[in-house]
Amino acid sequence: MDVKIARTAGFCWGVRRTVDKVMEVAGQADGPVVTLGPIIHNPQAVARFRDKGVGTVNAVGEVADGTTVVVRTHGAIRDELERAKARGLEVVDGTCPYVKYPQAIAQRLSEEGYHVVIVGDANHAEIKGVVSYSKGPCTVVKPGGEIPEIKARKVAVIAQTTCIGAEFERVVGALALRHREVRAVNTICNDTDERQADARALAREVDAVVVVGGKSSANTRHLAEICREIQPRTWHVETEAELDRAWFAGCKVVGLSAGASTPDWVVEGVAAWLRALP
Amino acid sequence: MDVKIARTAGFCWGVRRTVDKVMEVAGQADGPVVTLGPIIHNPQAVARFRDKGVGTVNAVGEVADGTTVVVRTHGAIRDELERAKARGLEVVDGTCPYVKYPQAIAQRLSEEGYHVVIVGDANHAEIKGVVSYSKGPCTVVKPGGEIPEIKARKVAVIAQTTCIGAEFERVVGALALRHREVRAVNTICNDTDERQADARALAREVDAVVVVGGKSSANTRHLAEICREIQPRTWHVETEAELDRAWFAGCKVVGLSAGASTPDWVVEGVAAWLRALP
Repeated sequence: MDVKIARTAGFCWGVRRTVDKVMEVAGQADGPVVTLGPIIHNPQAVARFRDKGVGTVNAVGEVADGTTVVVRTHGAIRDELERAKARGLEVVDGTCPYVKYPQAIAQRLSEEGYHVVIVGDANHAEIKGVVSYSKGPCTVVKPGGEIPEIKARKVAVIAQTTCIGAEFERVVGALALRHREVRAVNTICNDTDERQADARALAREVDAVVVVGGKSSANTRHLAEICREIQPRTWHVETEAELDRAWFAGCKVVGLSAGASTPDWVVEGVAAWLRALP
Repeated sequence: MDVKIARTAGFCWGVRRTVDKVMEVAGQADGPVVTLGPIIHNPQAVARFRDKGVGTVNAVGEVADGTTVVVRTHGAIRDELERAKARGLEVVDGTCPYVKYPQAIAQRLSEEGYHVVIVGDANHAEIKGVVSYSKGPCTVVKPGGEIPEIKARKVAVIAQTTCIGAEFERVVGALALRHREVRAVNTICNDTDERQADARALAREVDAVVVVGGKSSANTRHLAEICREIQPRTWHVETEAELDRAWFAGCKVVGLSAGASTPDWVVEGVAAWLRALP
């Protein structure tokens, strides 16, 4: 089988930066090292970290004194971070700078009196973190979801870094009609834009698409949605173990895209499996 | 014929305010009184003013010393206003406060480094005035038109006070994806919103619609567009003289809407003509 891999498949700059940082800390720290939540949304990568002695906790309350606490790429909830600092724990901030940006905007514009609206998934770690930086009322609008009525004259709109562009466009446009002032800061990261454009182009050229990445990875799921709209034969898998030969019956070329948190070796595993198809 | 008149047909608050002001000035001024451009976009109303001795000029350069210059509801170009003041002419500012608002926003946000985008008609007096208040680059996007590429990190978006809401929504949404920050101030006046909603509701209930108002009145033209989308039998006329009995063949109820610059007596003339139909 001919396999076309998207140019942008695999770790983005921010994930690579955080992963490298954690590897470095794991090799140097005296005490235990834990990440606050899974360091990235990729079970295979997280398993590798576990093998290197880097555990995962859900809250600062779970760790012993002397532990090094690593903030994952998605950032942390402000209170948790302050709790860690108050306890004198070593904190290594692995927050992606592209995630720090919406956190800072949420804080600044809420301080300036804007009601903050975030286009994203309220249950996602990144959004929980961004919400925690807002100093005033804050509403999360789910992509594709209804926009609730907000009682505010001034509204600031930001997006999850992995948001699909058209959704940000929809929400900003609708709010511009409802409120006196809408201040929209496009916090979708460049990597997301490029990766989505790449996936779109790839889906048009192939007979089937495999998107590789964690099932709880928002950016990977969005890639699969985007590809599926163009090429209905799109599959989202975490590893080659999930693949089924029957999916590719009659295909000549399969496209391969991968999320920002998918390690290269996982992408390679899937590519090898596909190339071995007749 | 049964005639249903839209609740909001006729002069808006801003037009009534300016018209009253000009009538007052016309009765008190010692020298000649002129308006900079037609006071409102209604030829019938302008003719009445001419009868009261209030002329119309296109530029301050055309008037003699001692003339009282009235700024029309749509506002004036900043330089013209300054020329009038520099010459020591008496200036009566009839600019609608709802038009002063986008003028002030264009000035303030351009001073703050925003590239100003106005959704409206570049040839309309209101927009020429608003553009003149911007202290930096400024782009006018025509409703329904293509959005040109703008090289700017921060963009401020405002609308002609009579803009159709969906157009403002479209432009703000699209720009939010292209630029780092989009600051949209909804300068569509409440009257426009209400009048358009009223016209929409009326068009759904009747067999034909007559929209009364100046052919160069932007808000009247928009009302006709809105009604025509719902009721194809929609006619835009300035007075009953243009009406044709054949247009209403088979109709039981005709709806009547009118622009913000259409005098009540003109609306009444049309209504009377329609009521007289069998």
